[in-house]
Amino acid sequence: MIVAEFSMVPMGEGTSSSKYVRKVHKVLKDSGLKFVLGPMSTSVEAGSLDEIFSVIEKANQALVQMNVKRIITSVKVDYRLDKEISIDSKLNAVME
Amino acid sequence: MIVAEFSMVPMGEGTSSSKYVRKVHKVLKDSGLKFVLGPMSTSVEAGSLDEIFSVIEKANQALVQMNVKRIITSVKVDYRLDKEISIDSKLNAVME
Amino acid sequence: MIVAEFSMVPMGEGTSSSKYVRKVHKVLKDSGLKFVLGPMSTSVEAGSLDEIFSVIEKANQALVQMNVKRIITSVKVDYRLDKEISIDSKLNAVME
Amino acid sequence: MIVAEFSMVPMGEGTSSSKYVRKVHKVLKDSGLKFVLGPMSTSVEAGSLDEIFSVIEKANQALVQMNVKRIITSVKVDYRLDKEISIDSKLNAVME
Repeated sequence: MIVAEFSMVPMGEGTSSSKYVRKVHKVLKDSGLKFVLGPMSTSVEAGSLDEIFSVIEKANQALVQMNVKRIITSVKVDYRLDKEISIDSKLNAVME
Repeated sequence: MIVAEFSMVPMGEGTSSSKYVRKVHKVLKDSGLKFVLGPMSTSVEAGSLDEIFSVIEKANQALVQMNVKRIITSVKVDYRLDKEISIDSKLNAVME
Repeated sequence: MIVAEFSMVPMGEGTSSSKYVRKVHKVLKDSGLKFVLGPMSTSVEAGSLDEIFSVIEKANQALVQMNVKRIITSVKVDYRLDKEISIDSKLNAVME
Repeated sequence: MIVAEFSMVPMGEGTSSSKYVRKVHKVLKDSGLKFVLGPMSTSVEAGSLDEIFSVIEKANQALVQMNVKRIITSVKVDYRLDKEISIDSKLNAVME
């Protein structure tokens, strides 16, 4: 699995972003991928980089359909090949 | 309150970072600031940017004391003036 | 055009990353996309999010072929719909 | 030297950010620190993490004085102890 976190900032739409966050949340639910919402960003796990990036593209398109004119998206990807990782394994590693 | 998330990548120390994550965790506990561990980064809240950046500096110094020779730190700060925010208020906004 | 910046940190490969940066540089050249190298990250422009993410996937695969076992990739994307943007237009806006 | 890159997104202020970028540019000039403007972010070098974070705090305060109500700041810091680095040394490493 590949684990990534991302966040999206809609510009020009006021200071509140909660309706956009909820829309992105819905895109993630529809994707079938496992994800965890955090206070600053959302973590998601998938079998490939392509799946990670596809859902982020869909999230961008969803905000465009809500008429957002500029979106700043930040993504951080942990691509690890020497060990199987997941959202849960990473959380367990920091919690223990 | 100001809410931020950050993560630190030690370079040159093998692929596992869990012992460093635990050290950063300890620095956060000792700081008295509220924080939440996530799979990809840690969120922290404080009354000022200065407190946020101070704890991140302390976390860097803690890894230096562990003999890490290169550290890449990523920080994202949400500084909001029109509304009181916190880790909890931000989590509630996305969860509702 | 969509403009993005990204950087990749190979873990477990020593503190120097210049040979990996040069490999990513080659992947970008081969892509035909316009890009600019910076001290901390690389900026790239493309006609779609898909092209941006595809080249970042290729860059990850190139490092995997160099036997890197863990790669942390950070990406920031500026997707703007109300105005045509490019690496040059963004540089001009900040330089003027 | 420590090298960092950062960018700031003002929310609720329309889609254009060039006047804010110019203000941040001025804060950097006044700081006396060496910096380089890029299409997506600004790179800065300083002798300590404290100097890096101080100038980013000043940049935040400058936008607050311009009446921005919410600012998302992203920072990435390269803190390296085994080798002297600078904006120029890092650019040379990728350009060679």
